[in-house]
Amino acid sequence: MNMVDVILKKKAGGTLSPEEIRAFARGAADGSVPDYQLAALLMAICWRGMTPEETACLTMEMMHSGSVVDLSAIDGVCVDKHSTGGVGDTTTLVLVPLAAACGAKVAKLSGRGLGHTGGTLDKLESIPGCSVNVSIEDFIRQVQKIGCAVIGQTQDLCPADKALYALRDVTGTVDCIPLIASSIVSKKLASGAGAIVLDVKTGSGALMQTVEQSIELAKAMVEIGAQAGKPILALVTGMDQPLGTHVGNALEVKEAIDILAGRAAGDLLTVSLELGSRMLIASGIARDVEDGKARMMQALTSGAGLAKLKEMIVAQGGDGRVCDDVDYLPHAAYKISVPAPASGYVARMDTAAIGRCAQALGAGRQKKTDVIDPAVGLVMDVRLGDEVKAGDSLATLYLNRCELANGAVESMQRAITIAKEKPELPPLIHAAVSREGVTR
Amino acid sequence: MNMVDVILKKKAGGTLSPEEIRAFARGAADGSVPDYQLAALLMAICWRGMTPEETACLTMEMMHSGSVVDLSAIDGVCVDKHSTGGVGDTTTLVLVPLAAACGAKVAKLSGRGLGHTGGTLDKLESIPGCSVNVSIEDFIRQVQKIGCAVIGQTQDLCPADKALYALRDVTGTVDCIPLIASSIVSKKLASGAGAIVLDVKTGSGALMQTVEQSIELAKAMVEIGAQAGKPILALVTGMDQPLGTHVGNALEVKEAIDILAGRAAGDLLTVSLELGSRMLIASGIARDVEDGKARMMQALTSGAGLAKLKEMIVAQGGDGRVCDDVDYLPHAAYKISVPAPASGYVARMDTAAIGRCAQALGAGRQKKTDVIDPAVGLVMDVRLGDEVKAGDSLATLYLNRCELANGAVESMQRAITIAKEKPELPPLIHAAVSREGVTR
Repeated sequence: MNMVDVILKKKAGGTLSPEEIRAFARGAADGSVPDYQLAALLMAICWRGMTPEETACLTMEMMHSGSVVDLSAIDGVCVDKHSTGGVGDTTTLVLVPLAAACGAKVAKLSGRGLGHTGGTLDKLESIPGCSVNVSIEDFIRQVQKIGCAVIGQTQDLCPADKALYALRDVTGTVDCIPLIASSIVSKKLASGAGAIVLDVKTGSGALMQTVEQSIELAKAMVEIGAQAGKPILALVTGMDQPLGTHVGNALEVKEAIDILAGRAAGDLLTVSLELGSRMLIASGIARDVEDGKARMMQALTSGAGLAKLKEMIVAQGGDGRVCDDVDYLPHAAYKISVPAPASGYVARMDTAAIGRCAQALGAGRQKKTDVIDPAVGLVMDVRLGDEVKAGDSLATLYLNRCELANGAVESMQRAITIAKEKPELPPLIHAAVSREGVTR
Repeated sequence: MNMVDVILKKKAGGTLSPEEIRAFARGAADGSVPDYQLAALLMAICWRGMTPEETACLTMEMMHSGSVVDLSAIDGVCVDKHSTGGVGDTTTLVLVPLAAACGAKVAKLSGRGLGHTGGTLDKLESIPGCSVNVSIEDFIRQVQKIGCAVIGQTQDLCPADKALYALRDVTGTVDCIPLIASSIVSKKLASGAGAIVLDVKTGSGALMQTVEQSIELAKAMVEIGAQAGKPILALVTGMDQPLGTHVGNALEVKEAIDILAGRAAGDLLTVSLELGSRMLIASGIARDVEDGKARMMQALTSGAGLAKLKEMIVAQGGDGRVCDDVDYLPHAAYKISVPAPASGYVARMDTAAIGRCAQALGAGRQKKTDVIDPAVGLVMDVRLGDEVKAGDSLATLYLNRCELANGAVESMQRAITIAKEKPELPPLIHAAVSREGVTR
C-alpha cells in the first residue's frame, strides 16, 4: 500500500477502500506510516469528508487496533453514555445510579478533564478514597453485582485513535465530523458497550458551536452504530451556559448528591432524565421516553438512586458518607463573589471561558501532567435570562490560592454579558437523533 | 507564532500574513516546525490556495532562506530560462549559445533529471571532460568573458524549498499551483537571475496536463515576478510528444549540435527560437519577438551559436571537438527498432511513459543515488500525425544492456497509439503570458 496514493485519492475527493483505511489506522497505531503522511491525510479528510461507510470502517479499524473489553459475562445489555464534553456537566453521576437503580447495567469507562471541560474520573477521585483504577475483572464483577461502575480506560484501548487524536491536536484537524465521530464511537465500542446514548453538546461551551453541526455529528455517530450493529441514540443539548450550577470536581459531586437527594433540580436533572430514559429504552427496561423518565424519577424520589451512588462509591473504595453529608467532600479555603458590573439581564455566557476560569483556579489541567485541586471551582449564581442589579453575585469562586481571585473575577465578568433587553432563551434539548431520523 | 493557529487560518480559507508565511518557510528550513505541521499546512494550501501576495511572499521567504547568488559583477542583465520539465527537451543547449552569441548574458544554475524528465547537468556531463561543478567565482568570470555558463546549483540555495519539496513529494501535495510557482521562482531568484523566461510544458509529458492549468501556473509565476520587481515572461508549450526527436543525455547533446550546425530543425528549434527571442527582449537586445527570432536565426546560420557552445564546453573543461564531430560523444552498444504493431496514424503519445522508458534504459534516475548511462536513450522515428505501416520503426532504442530491449520495445508500443483516423494535431505554442496578459 503506497500511502501517497491513498492521500492523493482522498485529496481528489475519492472514497477510500477498507484496505486503504486499514493501512491508515494500523499505520497510525504501529507507527509504520510517518506522522507527516498521517497529517496530510487528516487534512485531506477535513477537506473532502468521508462517506458513512468510510467513517464506520475507520471506527472499526481504530476499535480493533487495541484490545476490546469483553462484557459478555454481564447479564443483559450493557449500556453506556457519552457526552462530547461540557462545563458543569455531571450527568454521569446523576443518571448512572438512577439507571442502575431501575435495573440497567452500566459498565462505563470514563475519561479525565482536559481543556475547559471536566472529566468524570477527576470528579469521582475528589471523593475521599474513591478509586477509578479498577481491573477489568473487578469492574465486571461490580457491574454484575450492583449494576454500575465507572472506571478509567485501560492503557491499550484504541491506540490508533490515541495516535491520531494527539496528531489532530497539533495539526489543526480536530474540527472534522467524521474524525470526531469515529474517535468517540471507537472508544465506546472498544470499551464493550452493547448500546450507547450520546449527549452531543452545542453552544458556547461545546466543541460544536452550531446546532446544525451538532446534529451532523450526532447523525454521523448514529450511522456508525447502524453500520456496526450497535444501537446508538443521540440527543443534542444546549451548552450555552454551564449545565449544572456547580463547576469543579467536588463541587459537581456535591450537586449530583443534592439532586439525587431531592434538594436540587434544574437543567442538569432535566438532561439526565432525558438521557437516562433513553438508556432504559436501549436496555429494554422502558417502553418509551415518558415511561423511562417516570422510572428515573421514581428511583430519585424513592432514594434508590442516591443509595445506588453510595453503593458504587463504597464498591470503588470511597467514603460513602459523602452521600449522607456532603461536608465529607473536600472544601476550598476561600469563597469570593463575582459582582455584576452593571444592571440588566444575563444575556450571554462564554461557557468555554467559564470552564477555563475553573481550570485556572486548579479544577482542570492545562497540560496532561498538571495536578488537579479537587476542592476548587465555582458555583453559578445566575442563569441566562435572569435579571440582576449591579453588584449582585453572578457566581461564587471556590479557591485555595487567593492570589488567583482578581484575575478570575475579571475573567468571569468578561465571560458573562449583561444586556438591557431580556434575551430570548435557547432551548435545552435541541434534537433527538436516531436511525429513524431527527426529532426537534 | 503558534503554527496550529496558522494551519487553522489557512484551513478556514484565510490569508496568511507575511509573518505567518515567514514562520512557515523558516520553520521548514531550520526544522523548527515539525514535518507533520508543515504537511498539514501544505495540504490546507492545496485546499484553499494562496493569493498572489501570499505566493510572492512565500517565494521571497524561500529565496532568502539560504544564500543568494550575487551576479552584479556581470555587465548587463543576466537572463535565465527555466522549463517545468519535459521529454526530449534540450532547449537550454540550443538557446543558451544562440542567445549568448547575440550578446545576452546567460548565467544558468541548472538541475539534474529525476523521474521521466531529463536534466541539463546530466546532458552536459555526457560530453567527455565537461564539468558542471564550477565555483561561483569561476562561473561569474566565465559569463563575463564568453557570455554564458551552465553549472550545478550550490548546496545552500533555498533550503526552505528543498525541505518543502521533499515533503510535498511524500505527502501528495506536489500538484498545487502556488507551491509549484513559488518553488520554481524562488530557486531562479536565488540563483541571481535579473530576468527569467519560463517554458511551462503542457500535455502528456508535463506536470500540468491541461492547457488551462498550465496557463494558471504561468500567470502565477509572472505575477510573482511582478511583485518581486523582476521581469518574468512565460510560454506555454506542448509536451504531447517528445519535443526533440532524441531522448537521453549524449543523444540530446548530439541533437542540439545538429540543430546548431544546421543539420536538423523541427519543434525543438521552434520552441528554442521562441524562448530565446524573449530572452533577447528581456536583455534589451531585441525589439520584439520577430526581431529576436531573426537575431537567433542569424547566430545559427552564421555558425556563431555552435562556436559559442564549443567555447562554453571548453571553458567548462569539456572536449570541444564534439561540436565538430558528434562521434566524440559516448555511443551505446546496441540499436534496436520499435516496430509499429499496426498500420494507421500516430494518434497519441504517452510522453511521460516514453521518458520513463528512456529512464529505464539507464538515461535517468529512479532514485537520486542512481548512476546515469550517458550513451543510452531513444530516438523517435515518428511524430504525431505521421502515417505508418505495421512494422515501420516508431523509435530506435540505444542501449548497453540488451536484456532491457524486450521490455522497452513493449513499453514504447504501449506508449504510442496508432489509430485509423488522422488525428488533429495539438498546437506547439499554446500561449504567451506576460504582465500584459495572455496571448494565445
